[in-house]
Amino acid sequence: MSDYIPNPEDRFTFGLWTVGWQARDPFGDATRPPLDPVESVHRLAELGAYGVSFHDDDLLAVEHDRDRAVERFRKALAETGMKVPMATTNLFTHPVFKDGAFTSNDRDIRRHALRKVIRNLDLAAELGAATYVCWGGREGAESGAAKDVRAALDRYKEAMDLLTSYVIDRGYDIRFAIEPKPNEPRGDILLPTIGHALAFINELEHPERVGLNPEVGHEEMSGLNFAHGVAQALWHGKLFHIDLNGQHGPRYDQDLVFGHGDVIGSFFLVDLLENGGYDGPRHFDYKPPRTEDAEDVWVSATANMRTYLILKEKAKAYRADPEVAEALAASRVAELAEPTLAPGETPADLARDDFDLEEAAARGFHFSRLNQLALEHLLGVRG
Amino acid sequence: MSDYIPNPEDRFTFGLWTVGWQARDPFGDATRPPLDPVESVHRLAELGAYGVSFHDDDLLAVEHDRDRAVERFRKALAETGMKVPMATTNLFTHPVFKDGAFTSNDRDIRRHALRKVIRNLDLAAELGAATYVCWGGREGAESGAAKDVRAALDRYKEAMDLLTSYVIDRGYDIRFAIEPKPNEPRGDILLPTIGHALAFINELEHPERVGLNPEVGHEEMSGLNFAHGVAQALWHGKLFHIDLNGQHGPRYDQDLVFGHGDVIGSFFLVDLLENGGYDGPRHFDYKPPRTEDAEDVWVSATANMRTYLILKEKAKAYRADPEVAEALAASRVAELAEPTLAPGETPADLARDDFDLEEAAARGFHFSRLNQLALEHLLGVRG
Amino acid sequence: MSDYIPNPEDRFTFGLWTVGWQARDPFGDATRPPLDPVESVHRLAELGAYGVSFHDDDLLAVEHDRDRAVERFRKALAETGMKVPMATTNLFTHPVFKDGAFTSNDRDIRRHALRKVIRNLDLAAELGAATYVCWGGREGAESGAAKDVRAALDRYKEAMDLLTSYVIDRGYDIRFAIEPKPNEPRGDILLPTIGHALAFINELEHPERVGLNPEVGHEEMSGLNFAHGVAQALWHGKLFHIDLNGQHGPRYDQDLVFGHGDVIGSFFLVDLLENGGYDGPRHFDYKPPRTEDAEDVWVSATANMRTYLILKEKAKAYRADPEVAEALAASRVAELAEPTLAPGETPADLARDDFDLEEAAARGFHFSRLNQLALEHLLGVRG
Amino acid sequence: MSDYIPNPEDRFTFGLWTVGWQARDPFGDATRPPLDPVESVHRLAELGAYGVSFHDDDLLAVEHDRDRAVERFRKALAETGMKVPMATTNLFTHPVFKDGAFTSNDRDIRRHALRKVIRNLDLAAELGAATYVCWGGREGAESGAAKDVRAALDRYKEAMDLLTSYVIDRGYDIRFAIEPKPNEPRGDILLPTIGHALAFINELEHPERVGLNPEVGHEEMSGLNFAHGVAQALWHGKLFHIDLNGQHGPRYDQDLVFGHGDVIGSFFLVDLLENGGYDGPRHFDYKPPRTEDAEDVWVSATANMRTYLILKEKAKAYRADPEVAEALAASRVAELAEPTLAPGETPADLARDDFDLEEAAARGFHFSRLNQLALEHLLGVRG
Repeated sequence: MSDYIPNPEDRFTFGLWTVGWQARDPFGDATRPPLDPVESVHRLAELGAYGVSFHDDDLLAVEHDRDRAVERFRKALAETGMKVPMATTNLFTHPVFKDGAFTSNDRDIRRHALRKVIRNLDLAAELGAATYVCWGGREGAESGAAKDVRAALDRYKEAMDLLTSYVIDRGYDIRFAIEPKPNEPRGDILLPTIGHALAFINELEHPERVGLNPEVGHEEMSGLNFAHGVAQALWHGKLFHIDLNGQHGPRYDQDLVFGHGDVIGSFFLVDLLENGGYDGPRHFDYKPPRTEDAEDVWVSATANMRTYLILKEKAKAYRADPEVAEALAASRVAELAEPTLAPGETPADLARDDFDLEEAAARGFHFSRLNQLALEHLLGVRG
Repeated sequence: MSDYIPNPEDRFTFGLWTVGWQARDPFGDATRPPLDPVESVHRLAELGAYGVSFHDDDLLAVEHDRDRAVERFRKALAETGMKVPMATTNLFTHPVFKDGAFTSNDRDIRRHALRKVIRNLDLAAELGAATYVCWGGREGAESGAAKDVRAALDRYKEAMDLLTSYVIDRGYDIRFAIEPKPNEPRGDILLPTIGHALAFINELEHPERVGLNPEVGHEEMSGLNFAHGVAQALWHGKLFHIDLNGQHGPRYDQDLVFGHGDVIGSFFLVDLLENGGYDGPRHFDYKPPRTEDAEDVWVSATANMRTYLILKEKAKAYRADPEVAEALAASRVAELAEPTLAPGETPADLARDDFDLEEAAARGFHFSRLNQLALEHLLGVRG
Repeated sequence: MSDYIPNPEDRFTFGLWTVGWQARDPFGDATRPPLDPVESVHRLAELGAYGVSFHDDDLLAVEHDRDRAVERFRKALAETGMKVPMATTNLFTHPVFKDGAFTSNDRDIRRHALRKVIRNLDLAAELGAATYVCWGGREGAESGAAKDVRAALDRYKEAMDLLTSYVIDRGYDIRFAIEPKPNEPRGDILLPTIGHALAFINELEHPERVGLNPEVGHEEMSGLNFAHGVAQALWHGKLFHIDLNGQHGPRYDQDLVFGHGDVIGSFFLVDLLENGGYDGPRHFDYKPPRTEDAEDVWVSATANMRTYLILKEKAKAYRADPEVAEALAASRVAELAEPTLAPGETPADLARDDFDLEEAAARGFHFSRLNQLALEHLLGVRG
Repeated sequence: MSDYIPNPEDRFTFGLWTVGWQARDPFGDATRPPLDPVESVHRLAELGAYGVSFHDDDLLAVEHDRDRAVERFRKALAETGMKVPMATTNLFTHPVFKDGAFTSNDRDIRRHALRKVIRNLDLAAELGAATYVCWGGREGAESGAAKDVRAALDRYKEAMDLLTSYVIDRGYDIRFAIEPKPNEPRGDILLPTIGHALAFINELEHPERVGLNPEVGHEEMSGLNFAHGVAQALWHGKLFHIDLNGQHGPRYDQDLVFGHGDVIGSFFLVDLLENGGYDGPRHFDYKPPRTEDAEDVWVSATANMRTYLILKEKAKAYRADPEVAEALAASRVAELAEPTLAPGETPADLARDDFDLEEAAARGFHFSRLNQLALEHLLGVRG
């Protein structure tokens, strides 16, 4: 048994806003003091993380002069070897974004939002970020009267087209990753799921530059199976980044520690990420619970990484277990990879099948055994 | 005030399986006798409907010989002038489809599913159906172990490619419409929302032949705003057909009468359909409640159409009300249609804006007034 | 048609924290300046409200000295004739309550919470409040390990017993009303629904002094039918107060304007309140949307009252419509008020019934007609 | 490590309708043949179960003569030593119950429902059942117009009062257990949660004879924390029986194998049942998935029991782990069992506390560590 000690090769990253969350919630004031991003970089490095990500405003938590703040951050990165694989823009905290940023009804505000992103893109490029996340958390509405959704999608596309052109023109090696969410803080948010965002990308000028940053909790807020959504994103070649955390189904956005929500869902997700060709960072976008003090923050940060490593080990054991292999075969899971028609077959060939409907209907799929084997691997009671 | 009497120009259509539902549910036996499709065609015609849609198996409700059943159905259509704008295949009732049809792990069953669709496509073409709906209700899984989602999407694509090629080869004037649903009867269904299905279509060989048939209740089962989803489908040019009904949020699929779920959502939906360029049938996919007797069925069928006509009249009055126009302007709803950048503007131009952040942040959007005006139009207390 | 102008006889009340909400949300800063409670009292009085309710801390929004704040508030009440039918304690904003108040794991904090309530009870009594609301928003947990739920219920009972004894000892004419909520800001909150709170009350020392303050959105966050819950609370004689607002099903707590969520649900709720024997205030606990400016706040406040008055008028017309009466009779709605057994009947008598199972099963309930009549009254297209 | 082999001392029981489910669902026909209850008794006995429960109609699955069916069942029980700790009545399958049983608007039907229960109570008593479950699955409505909820509660009470009197009169040693459910098959069901049912019981004539049979999935369909609900039921002394299964949040009633839904929720539930004083049967109310064949049924039946035994072992290890004990102490979990006031203390004493608000607010609760320890016990990577 390994000791589940994270190290940079595991490529674990954290948003500065996660460990730095002061725990202000809709009904309560902050329970923790501001955290210096420099301290976050050092502490996370000590815990074995690979890097951090940030919103433009995150750097200003304790040092309010932007240039000095960037300088201090840069120094911390250099001292620790921490990377910045991803950056993003805060287009939601300031009251000016109350009706959205790229799709605010107010054109002046849309222009301001674009300026804010462009300014931070330059910094992101300098710091070597390969991915730039766009979470359109305020792009939405509470009322069917208030927003012309098709016009909003036009403006969203205009913004993404401008931004992709900008990074191409500047020669930045940056790709964008849209982060879907169904609601909160708006009543209904545009591009609410992985699917809606994938569809939207196809209408852009530079679709190859835009992919997804799906978040566990955001899909689960709609009751959707997160691993299914990630598998579809992979199928489209669009899993550019991922936000790992936990959630207990449709309710407010919980941002629990990874694995502290749907445990078996987390297992199948890790199994997919490890075996499905995703090679980006394992990025945690969680919130240390509001009950926790400044030291507890680092306990919770570590918990995310430990849980991932534990589940990774289990996924490996699961795939290596001969009984699992046998059960997968009995359930004909691999048979789904075989084309339904043989090469050259036509509809007319199909009609010639010798098919016994009732016999086929009687075949069992034996999924209960397979699922129980997965559960017992998860619970650590096999092998 | 009109009398809300439906007539064929309103293009109201019903699935034969709606009025013909015998009200078998997971916990109960049928409460109504089988209904002859011939009677359904006649009764719906009398009530002012434009047409009916059907699953291949629906025609066999009382006459089990397929040729005779088709002949009787055809005669009823001729006698009443009713149209068949849409047809579909039952790929879910028979036990053979217990693990899906196009994406069953069992290849023989996948082949059988394709045969069943192709056979019914020929009939659909003969009857003049312009749209062929694919609801993949059993394409899914209850366990993360049981289904390789990416392989499943490969097979789904293979099926859609085969079917689109088939109708093109035969010269049929038929387009396909995928109907998304998140769950029930499977734990998690593939292509669970409008967005996932829109994204999938982009990977097909003949994407121009494939669009969507979204259903009110299916999106609302995921807590999504249905009108937003329909607006996005229209934005992609993919609203090929629509299933109207009612639902009370995340729970089992209720298939209530249209308007008997989210009333204001239904209002904004009708407003969008009437003013958004959709010109297909207004198709009801509802279930007469299990408490109802054979005559009540027609009361509920009529209720769907009346509600639509009432909401259509209200949407018109809402759009014509000068106070609404003023409120829309005050909320800057139309300003969202203006491009954010002027023609020829570049990121560098943006940087030259003279923008007062705090002044812009202080501007109110006045959505409460607008939404209340919409509500009062809905409630019929204006004008 | 009335003009839906509210007046004090309608007994509309508002929490000071509603119009005074500065629109800070989990992802954004305040969009509105602090509002002086004195201004709120005057503005609400002008709009036709009957009274206001308050948390102890609400009075300190602009005047931080408690005595002066109370004095100014009292003066505003005197000038306007506004009443204070309800008061409550803020046991959630300060970080000290991060693990709850009456059920915090920390005993010192539990004691502090009780002191804070007692202090405000004295003020509530002075101002004539008849109802004291207890919303245990932070009484809960995010993890199954963190809270001994049975011990928590013991402490909750201890707190309620102490508080009821206190008001009895002091001779205050105050009753308590527990406000259930399923989650947010805690992962799971104790006494999550109307039902759980009703059950809890039965274990208290002075159950007659404790009832409920159910809130529309809180029950709908669990997907429950609010009017059903209110009906059960009335059945137990426990509807002491009510919080009216709007919500779109399971998601974050939206606190929409009353009627801006589930419209037909709001109609049946008003019908129940007006005809079900509830004679307390119609209290709005909503949030003016974050997009709105300081003047919009009053538009949204008015919208709540107008919607209530409109629905009240409609409920009256619905009950007076002879066709509705006939439909209710056809659906045998009143037959449910007849005891199932005649006076003196025994199980043995039941066995002597002459009952035709199949005939009884075939009887339709005709609910579709009834529901459509209700909907058409709601939409204002009848009479 | 034990081998997780169930035996009768574990008191595992199954409904005959679980393994006997033919897998008819709202969109599909049966995938499995009828199962002889006699076979179920024998197979379950071989697998190590303690007993079975049944609906009156379950016994008639293959032998339609009631007397012969009972005789064969009795014989199977005698041969295997299997017990019948619980029985119940099917008040939902027959069309006659389409508007409910005890609360149908139709009085004749209410009388029929009572007769059906009474008849089966006699058999239940004969077979030694100590618990009689009442699941009011059809007691509800789809429309606010269709049901007078307060009258319905009167009739529900009348029914429960009659039935409790009946068993008392006959000297039966039977207690009733109400099983709450929020919806499905009705739009909204009366007594939708554990809380609503607990409250209702307090209004009955013989409350001591009536408790609860909560079901995992039913509470989770409302997004409620099941272990919290069970803890409240235990607190009221009302956990008479329990239905174990799995569910993935708000959606249709899935009846998954126990542990195949929320894994960590299942862990905390077992921890509560094993340590919380519940000594009734561990009753599984699940459905073997529709994909499974007749032999798979027994694999899934076994999976329920194995999962329970695995979690029981883990709960024991968790409670015995000194690091867990230390973490529980650090989180002050046991401190909640201490009364908030010392014996004899009064509100006036509270006022004399020397309390440092900011110091108290700064104390962390360290729940992240505790929850991670629980998770790692669950995952089997400790000790």
